[in-house]
Amino acid sequence: MVAHRIALIPGDGIGQEVTPAAVEVLDAVGRRHGITFDHDEFDWSCARYRELGAMMPEDGLDRLRHHDAILLGAVGHPAVPDHISLWGLLIPIRRSFRQYVNLRPIKVFEGLESPVRRAVAGEVDLVVVRENVEGEYSEIGGRFNRGFAEEMAVQEAVFTRAGITRVADYAFSLARRRRGELTSATKSNGIVHTLPFWDEVVAERAEAYPDVSWRAEHIDALCAKVVLDPARFDVIVGSNLFGDILSDLTAAVAGGIGIAPSANINPEREFPSMFEPVHGSAPDIAGRGIANPLGAIWSAAMLLEHLGHAEAAAEVEQAIAAVLAGTGVRTPDLGGTATTREFTGAVLEFLGS
Amino acid sequence: MVAHRIALIPGDGIGQEVTPAAVEVLDAVGRRHGITFDHDEFDWSCARYRELGAMMPEDGLDRLRHHDAILLGAVGHPAVPDHISLWGLLIPIRRSFRQYVNLRPIKVFEGLESPVRRAVAGEVDLVVVRENVEGEYSEIGGRFNRGFAEEMAVQEAVFTRAGITRVADYAFSLARRRRGELTSATKSNGIVHTLPFWDEVVAERAEAYPDVSWRAEHIDALCAKVVLDPARFDVIVGSNLFGDILSDLTAAVAGGIGIAPSANINPEREFPSMFEPVHGSAPDIAGRGIANPLGAIWSAAMLLEHLGHAEAAAEVEQAIAAVLAGTGVRTPDLGGTATTREFTGAVLEFLGS
Ligand SMILES: CC(C)[C@H](C(=O)O)[C@@H](O)C(=O)O
Ligand SMILES: CC(C)[C@H](C(=O)O)[C@@H](O)C(=O)O
Repeated sequence: MVAHRIALIPGDGIGQEVTPAAVEVLDAVGRRHGITFDHDEFDWSCARYRELGAMMPEDGLDRLRHHDAILLGAVGHPAVPDHISLWGLLIPIRRSFRQYVNLRPIKVFEGLESPVRRAVAGEVDLVVVRENVEGEYSEIGGRFNRGFAEEMAVQEAVFTRAGITRVADYAFSLARRRRGELTSATKSNGIVHTLPFWDEVVAERAEAYPDVSWRAEHIDALCAKVVLDPARFDVIVGSNLFGDILSDLTAAVAGGIGIAPSANINPEREFPSMFEPVHGSAPDIAGRGIANPLGAIWSAAMLLEHLGHAEAAAEVEQAIAAVLAGTGVRTPDLGGTATTREFTGAVLEFLGS
Repeated sequence: MVAHRIALIPGDGIGQEVTPAAVEVLDAVGRRHGITFDHDEFDWSCARYRELGAMMPEDGLDRLRHHDAILLGAVGHPAVPDHISLWGLLIPIRRSFRQYVNLRPIKVFEGLESPVRRAVAGEVDLVVVRENVEGEYSEIGGRFNRGFAEEMAVQEAVFTRAGITRVADYAFSLARRRRGELTSATKSNGIVHTLPFWDEVVAERAEAYPDVSWRAEHIDALCAKVVLDPARFDVIVGSNLFGDILSDLTAAVAGGIGIAPSANINPEREFPSMFEPVHGSAPDIAGRGIANPLGAIWSAAMLLEHLGHAEAAAEVEQAIAAVLAGTGVRTPDLGGTATTREFTGAVLEFLGS
């Protein structure tokens, strides 16, 4: 019997609906594999901010530190500015826990029609490896001459050799375990300091992986190719911003961002890693019980994999695939009429629960 | 009889093949409308660089200054680094001539199958208005501790109130003449200095256009929506980088970047504006006579429109649409077997030449 301590942060909006679904699936697959989960639930959210003035308590990060993993739903509320909701919770967790890899796999599942004609089930199966703690999302910069005609804002993107090296190594190693093909997103023809540096460091790391074939593609052309010929991609590595863009775009190619999972990984395991669906809190549909729990459930599968339970993780993925391929059960965002509960129930049934 | 002086810069690779096609079309439609074109051709290119050590002569910009417009093919060669080919020709023209608007329309034409299922002919017809002289493409920044483990690169994005205001005004005015809907690309939730400033200035300008409904969308979600529901967009305004990404992506949605035109506009007409297809020099197919001239021909139509010949411009667009809808003539990038010449010939035929 293995026991894991999981920190649950359902957050806001549909985060409250999809997180319990993911937990049920974790518990169900755990029972089959002799894994138990101790869940500690935290009410950190915009709701908490509106009541108490902070997204999480001052010692929030310390309270998470000794968990084996974090499962997060979504954060965000129309009345709370992003610099509070995201920079007060999500981004501090990513950064403080050195979760410098953000893994975002997508697949075109049998039974889900992709919006892209050439995205055929079984052929499109790729992972975006996003740098998650530096790059374009820096706090360095500011505004000047505020309110006047000559006002300007500057923002500094910061790329370090250490930061590019470790994410490139992660991506090359992953590519080696998959199809042996890596695409590196760049824009070194327009952004002339940081991205040529990114290209250079990636090229240097490539030498350690002679069995992986790789190429750099400019982000503009790459986005076009993802739509024109998605099957040609296996692992794509990109900066914080480019990885963000590519993961939403590839999720759309697979059918919509409701299905996309993500894992914010600290590969050294000094700190807990965090698993969260790519979608946001979706205030427009929150509370109606119709949110798609697929992204959250798939994120739970990534959590299992990270904790060393590859077989259990594979079973969850197979259950998702089986529901999509074999039943008509899908939530409204995928053109169906099922509720969050019904979809979750269908997954649980395939897991024998 | 109106006479215009046009500077032609065919450039490299397929630029040499598509520019003459666009010129033939200009001349043909000119004959119908009593417009003549004096073409001055410049051999500025990577070929010139490799021979003479510079993409253009030192007084290059001065030589262009008194033309009514510039028609450019493409620049770039595998043996010439981008900071020479692009920053030695394309970008200095955009910046010195204050071409701060880069207009990139796309349409899903009848007879061309979009890679995106929901992109139906007649329904998708949008324009990306890209800020073209500031933002993320700045030369400010550099590298530090080069070659050492602690090496880093920084790059500063610079956004000015004047720069955002003028491109926002252009976009709102264009939206007002079209469907009255504007989408502004942002990422103010992750990029916390420049893009919140962008959002603020766009919101301020919006007050002057109460008849235009507008919304800001984060670039990640926006890219997804362009694939999931392209018909919902009319005018999209974005920064230099976001506009670049969105214009390649929307071109892909319309069938491929071979068809996409662009206009680098100096709205005040103090300087010539520049018209160029979005595609690059495509060394892989250069010299084979199979390049798609559609993007260059459509760019020539934008040139006509800019010079006040809206009717002539419309005729060129109609001829393109008629060839795609009514004949099987299309180049290999669009799944056909026609040569550059055959496609151009078909367009000329519809123009009565
Ligand atoms: C070549 C490159 C610098 C250029 C850009 O990004 O501006 C190109 O992609 C374009 O869109 O015109
Ligand atoms: C909410 C936002 C800051 C975030 C990001 O861009 O990192 C989100 O888009 C994501 O992809 O997790």
